[in-house]
Amino acid sequence: MEKIDGNISNGCIEYRDFPLYVNQVISIKGMIHRIREMTGFSFVIIRTARDVVQCVYSPDFSAYRMDERVVEGCAVKISGKVVKDETREDRFELQIHGIEVLSSPAEQMPIVINKKQLDNIPLDLNLNLRPVTLRNPKERAVFKIQEGIARGFREFLLSQGFTEIRTPKINAQGAEGGANIFKLDYFGKSVFLAQSPQFYKQMLVPIYERVFEVGPVFRAEHHDTSRHLNEYISMDFEMGFIDSFYDIMNMETGTLLYIMDLLQREYAPEVALLNVSLPQIDQIPVVKFMDAKEIITKKFKKKITDYRDFEPEEEQLLGKWAKQEFNSDFLFVTHYPSEKRPFYAMDDPADPTYTLSFDLLFRGIEITTGGQRIHDYHQQIAKMMARNMNPADFESYLMAHKYGMPPHGGLGLGLERITMHLLGFKNVRSASMFPRDINRVTP
Amino acid sequence: MEKIDGNISNGCIEYRDFPLYVNQVISIKGMIHRIREMTGFSFVIIRTARDVVQCVYSPDFSAYRMDERVVEGCAVKISGKVVKDETREDRFELQIHGIEVLSSPAEQMPIVINKKQLDNIPLDLNLNLRPVTLRNPKERAVFKIQEGIARGFREFLLSQGFTEIRTPKINAQGAEGGANIFKLDYFGKSVFLAQSPQFYKQMLVPIYERVFEVGPVFRAEHHDTSRHLNEYISMDFEMGFIDSFYDIMNMETGTLLYIMDLLQREYAPEVALLNVSLPQIDQIPVVKFMDAKEIITKKFKKKITDYRDFEPEEEQLLGKWAKQEFNSDFLFVTHYPSEKRPFYAMDDPADPTYTLSFDLLFRGIEITTGGQRIHDYHQQIAKMMARNMNPADFESYLMAHKYGMPPHGGLGLGLERITMHLLGFKNVRSASMFPRDINRVTP
Repeated sequence: MEKIDGNISNGCIEYRDFPLYVNQVISIKGMIHRIREMTGFSFVIIRTARDVVQCVYSPDFSAYRMDERVVEGCAVKISGKVVKDETREDRFELQIHGIEVLSSPAEQMPIVINKKQLDNIPLDLNLNLRPVTLRNPKERAVFKIQEGIARGFREFLLSQGFTEIRTPKINAQGAEGGANIFKLDYFGKSVFLAQSPQFYKQMLVPIYERVFEVGPVFRAEHHDTSRHLNEYISMDFEMGFIDSFYDIMNMETGTLLYIMDLLQREYAPEVALLNVSLPQIDQIPVVKFMDAKEIITKKFKKKITDYRDFEPEEEQLLGKWAKQEFNSDFLFVTHYPSEKRPFYAMDDPADPTYTLSFDLLFRGIEITTGGQRIHDYHQQIAKMMARNMNPADFESYLMAHKYGMPPHGGLGLGLERITMHLLGFKNVRSASMFPRDINRVTP
Repeated sequence: MEKIDGNISNGCIEYRDFPLYVNQVISIKGMIHRIREMTGFSFVIIRTARDVVQCVYSPDFSAYRMDERVVEGCAVKISGKVVKDETREDRFELQIHGIEVLSSPAEQMPIVINKKQLDNIPLDLNLNLRPVTLRNPKERAVFKIQEGIARGFREFLLSQGFTEIRTPKINAQGAEGGANIFKLDYFGKSVFLAQSPQFYKQMLVPIYERVFEVGPVFRAEHHDTSRHLNEYISMDFEMGFIDSFYDIMNMETGTLLYIMDLLQREYAPEVALLNVSLPQIDQIPVVKFMDAKEIITKKFKKKITDYRDFEPEEEQLLGKWAKQEFNSDFLFVTHYPSEKRPFYAMDDPADPTYTLSFDLLFRGIEITTGGQRIHDYHQQIAKMMARNMNPADFESYLMAHKYGMPPHGGLGLGLERITMHLLGFKNVRSASMFPRDINRVTP
């Protein structure tokens, strides 16, 4: 009778452990990333999960005879001796003793993926060929960084007593309203794809006090811009028993601090490869919406045409101002006008034309929208009525308010968008493994 | 100028820290879960994020006068003195000094949620009233356990060098085929909701070697059973450079060991509250599909009518056998017939009517399907052709094979299903916060 004991080891060594094995014979597994024939020897560059390892083939020490089976795209197991790379300090290479070909490609790559970067390839072609282009070390590093951002969000919030939730993506109701909602036939009923977990995370506040979710949301954006995706990963949290909406901003600041620290600690190879300049966060300055408008007029001599929201150019100017004045990559803007915020936003008791809400700008671009929500049932009903909404359409959602919920608030953060701006990309599609837009649903 | 420094503290104490504060005056925040009027005093039971805290109101020590504003469903801040509970060893209570009502419900709960459990409430009503019923401590504990299962899956795989991925849920193609796929109008194109991340995780193996995802999948199941949901959370992994498909089973065994240990360490209050019997895992026995059929015939005298798959009753018998023979709650069954496995399953070279695949049974119920996949392009094309599939429909997917991928395999694990069986539920809906079935899309 066979038994499985969970003992996991394949006897292979990771590149990061090479310093421990100098002059010893070891094995590695990986994909042949590149072969460079030199005079009398060859470099066989192996791509492993997170590294690119230089192996050297030479008849002087290689028992194996290179043949036509050893090509780029093969999966191989290589045995050999670890030695110091004489040309690059602190790097190690493997003198190949033997090569075992584990699998072979059927064709050569359709494009060159083993140069430093794929800059010369148009984005659309890059995305069409994603299963190939992501084999480029810089391309794949983008999504290790993305993993780190989501992981930092999760780890920090778990450490703060949040509960991780997973709310349904098939909904009877849209949370954010508007036209950008996908409809779906569900056994003859018309249902919707979730635009956000807003209703669910609020419903769960009287239950778990603090909740968060990292999951897909869907927006039927009809325009084709460099900033919008039709499916993206939303990182949301909602916290109860807040004293004011500044508690939410503090929690976000703590989260961002943790994320940047995690990237530095655990994702150093990718941070270095992509030359990421991680923002230094100490304190994040805060400015009120109307004061921000005044700064834009006074400091930058820009005429304001809309006092309900910011234009992208205005956000850029505010980012510039935060950098100049406070040497900060981040800026909280608070007290947005009520008319541009959703029906669940809590109005400022001091002036109900504004809300207890905020956006977070990162290098002049909005990455978060958040704020305090209405918790009182009658107040929520009144605001819905004033907006000509029918409370009966929101029966489940309003159960939270009706049967009691604490003062609370939260925020949403687009994973691809923060990745995009952290890495300085011009198009959010570069920060999505398999982006979905009005023209693209493949690969 | 205000600044936000990420300093998070509200001066309140968690119940677990009460032993450190005996005879001291502290504050807590929470929801009034229950009020029990006694002779001359009252118990005010406060529900916090993970605890239920007994507070005692008595004119002897409470400055605050209880009035009609203090009702079940209020969010409150209570100050008082921590004392030992004289009737229950190792429990502490709070002698109320003051109560601050932070918010009030509009109505009394529609059902009683503050008894030990909600057993007397029909499941359908429970689900209709989810924002209320989840306030019951046992109900909400289910989803803390669920959080722990998913967290264990993730933490263990991250420790094993896996990369966390998030693949698109709007797909041009169904991975698993068949009729149970939701169609969606996408700007005039017909697209599908993901049935599984299968294609994507395979495409990413030549890139990251090992990947995993925890995310929603959608199945348009037309029947209404106690075991199926139309939207559920799938925990998937895929690993490259395997020596055989036993490597996948080892990785799963390691994952399950880690999960059970994590539940014991970090979720002890919920494990105790729900009286969960965590399975002891040491080694998991393995039996081949055809040998399992023989065991069913010989040991249990059951006539086999179908040699392509198991009936649920047969799985039950195998579970019984594993318990009797090996004292194991788990059993791997391997080498399922090829005709019942998907087109990407690798056939056993020793007998191609069977596959290098497995199911994991947990207490007699299948919770995982996994196996080795075809990595060779020509072999994959041949198997598709033999099944009358058109390879041109799978162009992006097949890029992985065409340009080279290592031997690999993986598995999928339904989060609600494992939660259900771990907690001994009869209906999978009890293990979903907001289940979706053929009749239900709310709340």
